[in-house]
Amino acid sequence: MRVYDLIMKKRNGAVLSRAEIEYLITGYVDGSIPDYQMSALAMAICFQGMNDEETLNLTMAMVNSGDTISLQEIAGIKVDKHSTGGVGDTTTLVLIPLVAAAGVPVAKLSGRGLGHTGGTLDKLESIPGFRTEMTVADLIAAVKSIGVAVAGQTGNLVPADKMLYALRDVTATVDSKPLIAGSIMSKKLAAGADALVLDVKAGDGAFLKSREEAFDLAQAMVEIGNGAGRETVAVVTNMDQPLGRAVGNALEVEEAILTLRGEGPPDLEELCLVLGGWMLCLAGKIPDPEEGKAVLKKLIENGAALRKFKEMIKNQYGDDAVTENLALLPHTTNKINVKATGEGYISRLRAEVIGVAAMTLGAGREKKDSIMDPAVGIILEKKAGDRISAGETIAVVHAREEAGADLIASVDEMIRSAYELHDKPVDKPTLVFGSVDMKGR
Amino acid sequence: MRVYDLIMKKRNGAVLSRAEIEYLITGYVDGSIPDYQMSALAMAICFQGMNDEETLNLTMAMVNSGDTISLQEIAGIKVDKHSTGGVGDTTTLVLIPLVAAAGVPVAKLSGRGLGHTGGTLDKLESIPGFRTEMTVADLIAAVKSIGVAVAGQTGNLVPADKMLYALRDVTATVDSKPLIAGSIMSKKLAAGADALVLDVKAGDGAFLKSREEAFDLAQAMVEIGNGAGRETVAVVTNMDQPLGRAVGNALEVEEAILTLRGEGPPDLEELCLVLGGWMLCLAGKIPDPEEGKAVLKKLIENGAALRKFKEMIKNQYGDDAVTENLALLPHTTNKINVKATGEGYISRLRAEVIGVAAMTLGAGREKKDSIMDPAVGIILEKKAGDRISAGETIAVVHAREEAGADLIASVDEMIRSAYELHDKPVDKPTLVFGSVDMKGR
Repeated sequence: MRVYDLIMKKRNGAVLSRAEIEYLITGYVDGSIPDYQMSALAMAICFQGMNDEETLNLTMAMVNSGDTISLQEIAGIKVDKHSTGGVGDTTTLVLIPLVAAAGVPVAKLSGRGLGHTGGTLDKLESIPGFRTEMTVADLIAAVKSIGVAVAGQTGNLVPADKMLYALRDVTATVDSKPLIAGSIMSKKLAAGADALVLDVKAGDGAFLKSREEAFDLAQAMVEIGNGAGRETVAVVTNMDQPLGRAVGNALEVEEAILTLRGEGPPDLEELCLVLGGWMLCLAGKIPDPEEGKAVLKKLIENGAALRKFKEMIKNQYGDDAVTENLALLPHTTNKINVKATGEGYISRLRAEVIGVAAMTLGAGREKKDSIMDPAVGIILEKKAGDRISAGETIAVVHAREEAGADLIASVDEMIRSAYELHDKPVDKPTLVFGSVDMKGR
Repeated sequence: MRVYDLIMKKRNGAVLSRAEIEYLITGYVDGSIPDYQMSALAMAICFQGMNDEETLNLTMAMVNSGDTISLQEIAGIKVDKHSTGGVGDTTTLVLIPLVAAAGVPVAKLSGRGLGHTGGTLDKLESIPGFRTEMTVADLIAAVKSIGVAVAGQTGNLVPADKMLYALRDVTATVDSKPLIAGSIMSKKLAAGADALVLDVKAGDGAFLKSREEAFDLAQAMVEIGNGAGRETVAVVTNMDQPLGRAVGNALEVEEAILTLRGEGPPDLEELCLVLGGWMLCLAGKIPDPEEGKAVLKKLIENGAALRKFKEMIKNQYGDDAVTENLALLPHTTNKINVKATGEGYISRLRAEVIGVAAMTLGAGREKKDSIMDPAVGIILEKKAGDRISAGETIAVVHAREEAGADLIASVDEMIRSAYELHDKPVDKPTLVFGSVDMKGR
């Protein structure tokens, strides 16, 4: 087998066999296939695509490139959840305790990553004392004991993805459906869950701007998951405006606690119920995701979900009093109200611009070594569909104490520019566009 | 300017500006742009192509990546000739003295390269004593003195092409029209000729199999040459069967001498007259290429062309008696007649197969360090359109003395398989498919 021939084969639009794909991934990871051949292949894949079988074979070859985690010691069906990413996406923080409260074991491996805000780990670490470093054995023990735990990624999971992603990132080969699907799914499959619920986001704040692209990717990932023997369902959701009101690390933990108390923003709560409903369904707790929503709603109302969060925080050495006293979370004293200049109905609140504004404040990481501030971020007081008058506060900026006037002025300007107004009433945007489920539930 | 953005721009099918192309080529040569980005770009170019302006800008950026040769000291219009390569292509050996005999200065920089036989340098070096190492100053002095000289490539001409070609060769990005055109034309432009005649070959023994592809490439190269201010004409010719009868280094020198004596194979002579006619035309010697053919035919008949070859051989320290005594060229005593097994009219004589057979005998280089034997090769006794009977000799193999029976049997089998027979008479194939000339001559 020669790499040259395989690149040419894909360039010509032919289908690579399982053995050929395994040869390519194994060779790339062991260093026998150089970056310059892999980047040419990646570009050919961008143009010629991969069919479902190739995409599954690519994913499995990537899974097998490193360690995999087994969660078999934990009784029951372990359901993981993945979001393709958006602005103010606090669903994971809410879902971890919420689903665990329903008796579904949650052994969550999470990441930090680059973005407008930190990853789930960074957010949880804004709770004083909270620790996420643990071995897989510790994670399993914690789940067996209290039903839920969140850990940083450990071991050499999917090295092929780390290498390939770094290469794609500098060769303009990131946005290829099979490569994206393979990258996401390989990590999820290696992390050992039995079933997966995917939140595939579409809109301004997502990397997929159109619903069509999002449904395409959702379909590809659902095919991979089920092809790999893990029941997988995808929900395609709206990321045109930020989800909920908070964008920032501690601010999102605060929002998660509010949501677990039943006082969260309606869009965030609704999406958590939809995704959580599917998780309960795939865990075999209830036959129908709609029914799952009702079960979860009750766990919020009766305080069980918040208690589970408290239990988890305590078990991971965090200050569990934060669930009652939000003031214990890091806060900045430098808060600035952003005022509307015009008036009308908000037709759009561009998530991407808000994300960049949050990153500018220091809420996220532009580079791996960027320093992130847990306290900073933005609270959106008004969202699409709301009416605003000139001078009214539309958002509150939580800035570092030492933030200069220029930075504040620039963030203020960004946030105001993210709001688009219309003179007639505008409907609230649709939150869930649909789902991809092979069983048609 | 970011390489990532330029790769993405080309991936999306947009046109790269002159400054962008210069940035890419300069950065690649100085090492600031890594192979893996350049190979991704090359693959994107394979899919999206380049327009005429981009291709010219690419070519000029490559020319400017290293040294260029000036032939201005030599009076008159210097016309170079390039062939895209085929099997038994002895035209350059004939044209160098032939065109020089017509008073056109020929300062030929030539290469060795990989292929079924050696390059022009290798072939000339099979003449005892012949030397091709000389400086550009020596080359110019020789042309000023006797009107003709052939030298090996010297200096750091077009380093961008060397790097890019080596990369394309291992990333399945060789066959892209703009990249091929840029590679060929950058080397020709850097070598300093005022005008260019290109022999673009189509057929089994050429890298372009179809006439359409050959005309496309011819058009692209003619656009580049004229765009760069060097009058350029392309002739698209048939390389479905080998040109002439000889395939091998010394065997082709012998055939060139025969052709200069007026005793060469008709197809080789005809193509030399066509290409040479164009060279005279671009050199301003005659207005019309057809007229040039007649001038050159006369120089063969009156012995002037052969005398010029003799003069050049002597000037480059070779044994000029070879022009009268072909036995002075290296010959092997191990000659094997290949006999026809069937009978009928030769409908096709596949050049590629004959080329591989010659390489198997040791006439060419598979790798840079392969050892080439000047004496070995194949003489084709029968060609397309000829009638053959079973048992008749169709070709003569000139093998190394030490060649084993297995090798001979395999070459014999290859050669016989290259001949395709038909039971009805078959026309001789068309030699010249047409030309690409911006002035429509």
